[in-house]
Amino acid sequence: MASGGEVISNKQVIFKQFVEGFPKESDMAVKTSSISLKVEEGSNAVVVKNLYLSCDPRMRFRMKHSKDPGFVSFQPSSPLEGFGVAKVVDSGHPEFKKGDLVWGTVGWEEYSVIKNPESIFKIHHTDVPLSYYTGILGMPGLTAWAGFYEVCAPKKGEYVYISAASGAVGQLVGQFAKLMGCYVVGSAGSKEKVEILKNKLGFDDAFNYKEEHDLDAALKRCFPEGIDIYFDNVGGKMLDAVLLNMRLQGRIAVCGMISQYNLGQSEGVCNLMNIVYQRIHMVGFIVFDYFPQYSKFLEVVLSLIREGKIVYLEDIAEGLENAPAALVGLFSGRNIGKQVVVVARE
Amino acid sequence: MASGGEVISNKQVIFKQFVEGFPKESDMAVKTSSISLKVEEGSNAVVVKNLYLSCDPRMRFRMKHSKDPGFVSFQPSSPLEGFGVAKVVDSGHPEFKKGDLVWGTVGWEEYSVIKNPESIFKIHHTDVPLSYYTGILGMPGLTAWAGFYEVCAPKKGEYVYISAASGAVGQLVGQFAKLMGCYVVGSAGSKEKVEILKNKLGFDDAFNYKEEHDLDAALKRCFPEGIDIYFDNVGGKMLDAVLLNMRLQGRIAVCGMISQYNLGQSEGVCNLMNIVYQRIHMVGFIVFDYFPQYSKFLEVVLSLIREGKIVYLEDIAEGLENAPAALVGLFSGRNIGKQVVVVARE
Repeated sequence: MASGGEVISNKQVIFKQFVEGFPKESDMAVKTSSISLKVEEGSNAVVVKNLYLSCDPRMRFRMKHSKDPGFVSFQPSSPLEGFGVAKVVDSGHPEFKKGDLVWGTVGWEEYSVIKNPESIFKIHHTDVPLSYYTGILGMPGLTAWAGFYEVCAPKKGEYVYISAASGAVGQLVGQFAKLMGCYVVGSAGSKEKVEILKNKLGFDDAFNYKEEHDLDAALKRCFPEGIDIYFDNVGGKMLDAVLLNMRLQGRIAVCGMISQYNLGQSEGVCNLMNIVYQRIHMVGFIVFDYFPQYSKFLEVVLSLIREGKIVYLEDIAEGLENAPAALVGLFSGRNIGKQVVVVARE
Repeated sequence: MASGGEVISNKQVIFKQFVEGFPKESDMAVKTSSISLKVEEGSNAVVVKNLYLSCDPRMRFRMKHSKDPGFVSFQPSSPLEGFGVAKVVDSGHPEFKKGDLVWGTVGWEEYSVIKNPESIFKIHHTDVPLSYYTGILGMPGLTAWAGFYEVCAPKKGEYVYISAASGAVGQLVGQFAKLMGCYVVGSAGSKEKVEILKNKLGFDDAFNYKEEHDLDAALKRCFPEGIDIYFDNVGGKMLDAVLLNMRLQGRIAVCGMISQYNLGQSEGVCNLMNIVYQRIHMVGFIVFDYFPQYSKFLEVVLSLIREGKIVYLEDIAEGLENAPAALVGLFSGRNIGKQVVVVARE
C-alpha cells in the first residue's frame, strides 16, 4: 500500500495473453488504474512519469510463455514493459531526485514505480530530443555501435550490407559504416524506405526486398564483389541469400532475426557450408553485454549528432492509446525509423 | 613427350564422371596407363612413386562440376587427386632428390609427375609410420590442431563436443581437448566407434548418433551444463541440435558438414537465433590458411606421439584396386579412423 501522497489515475497498456504468431492489437488493452505518486517509506524505489516509450522487436520474446530465464515473460493482466524516457516524480534513492530525467525499463503506463533504480540511467544532456534516449542514445544506439565497431571489426573500404536498414538500429549501422569509409547497401520493405536510405541516410545503394523475387540476384547486383560485413537484423531467407555472397574472411553480426519471431518454426538456413568456404565469422551479440561501455558510446555519438555527422529517423505515435498498434506495426514494417510512443512531452 | 628414361606401366584410379548424390565405386575405374620415370629435360618437375593415399571428405567437392575457383573439379578420364605420401624417383627441382620422402597432392596412381614441387613437403622424420603424413602429421592433423587451438580458443575445464569424433580429424581434436583439461564427448555412427572413443581415445563420453531418436535429448544427457565448444564435422540436424545446447559465449568451429555433401539441397538449420541468445561465435575455417604454421605444428605433434600422449587410428585399404571403395566408404562411415590407401610400402 502507498503510504500517503497523491493518488491519481494511471492509464496503462495491459498485456492480455501469451501470443502465438503475429501479435495483434487485441493482445493488449488500454485500461486505467490508479497510483500513488509518493514512494513508500523506507523504500529506495523511484516513481516516474513516463514521457517516451520504445517499441522494440525483442519485446516479442516477452509476449510468449518462456522457460528461458533470459526472457522474463510479460505477466497477463499487467502492463507491458520496455525501455522508456521518464521524469522522476518522487525518489527514495539517493542518486535520483524529483525532476531528474532518466531512461531505462519502465511500464507501459503514465506513471511507473521503479523498484531497482540502479538499472536506470540519468540523462545529463538535454540539448538533443529526449526521445533519442529510446533510440540513437539508448539501447538501439548502443546495439548499433557495439555490433558494428566491436562485433564486425570493420575496415575502411569494406562492403557492408544491412537488412532492416531503416530501422532503429540499421539506420545507425549504415551511418557508422559510411563514417568508416565503407561501401554501404541496405534493404528495407518499401519504396519510401529505400529512398530514405539513399537520400537521407547516405547509403550508397538500397533495395526493397519485397520487390525482389531472387534475393541472391539482388545481392549480386548490389555487391558484384561480394559482402565483407553483414549486419543481420532479419535472419531467415535473407541470411541464406547473404551466405552465398560473403567474401573471404567476412563477418556476420547477428543482431536479431525479426523475420522469424512470429513463426511457429523458424525457416531453415541451408547455405551454412559457405561459412567454411569463405572462413566466415558469424557472431551473435546482445547489447546488454555492452552496457558498461555506455558512457563512452554516449560521448562519441552525442558529438556526432551535435556536429551534424549523423541523423536519426523516428516514427512517433501519439498517446498510450496508440501504443499497441505501434508495437504490432514493427512486425509488418509499418514504422519508418525508430518507433517511439509519446506518453507525455514533459 | 618424355625424353628417354624407363617407361613403365602405371595403374591409376580414373574419375569417370561428375557425381550427384552419394558417390559410387562405379564413378571411378582402375586402369593401367604408362609413364616415364625420368623428368623431362629443363623441367623442374618431380616424378614420385606413391606409397600412401589419403581419402578425404572434401574430395567430394571435386567430384562435382564446380564453377567455384576454390574447388577445381576432377577431370573426367583423368586420375583423381588427393593428399599422399610418396618417394621421389627423379627430380628436376634442386630441393628434391631421388629417394626423398614427401607428402602433398599426388594423383591416385602408382607414379605421379608433380609439376609444382613447391606445393609438397619433404618428410624428415621417419621414426613414425609414413602413413601418418596423410593423417595426424598431414592435412587432417593440422586441421584438428588449427581448428581446436586457433579457432575454438579453448580453456581448461570447458565442455567440448565433437561430431564424427572417430574420424581423421575428430579423434585428434578430442585428444587435444583432453590434454587441455576439457570435458570431451564425441559422437560416431556405430557401437564399435563409440567404444573406441571411450576406451582407446580417452573421451569422457560418447554416443552413437544413429541410435538416438532425439539428438537434442542425447546432447542434454551428455552435457547437462551445456556445450562450450562444438567442433562441427557434420552440419545439418546435428548442428541444429547443438545450437539448442550451447553455453554463453560458446564457440562453434565449422570444419566440415559431411552429412550434407551428397544432398542435392542442404538441410535447413532452424535454431540460429540461439547464436544471439548465447552470444555464440560460429567460425568457418580451412586448413590451407594454416599451412604456414605446419613446421610448428609438426614439432608439437611429433613430440606428443613420441611421448605416447596421443594415438592415431588408421583404417588401411590395401592396393589401388580398393581405393574407390575406401573413398566411397567415407560417406557411409564405413571407416574407423583415418582412411588410408596403401599403394606401396616402399
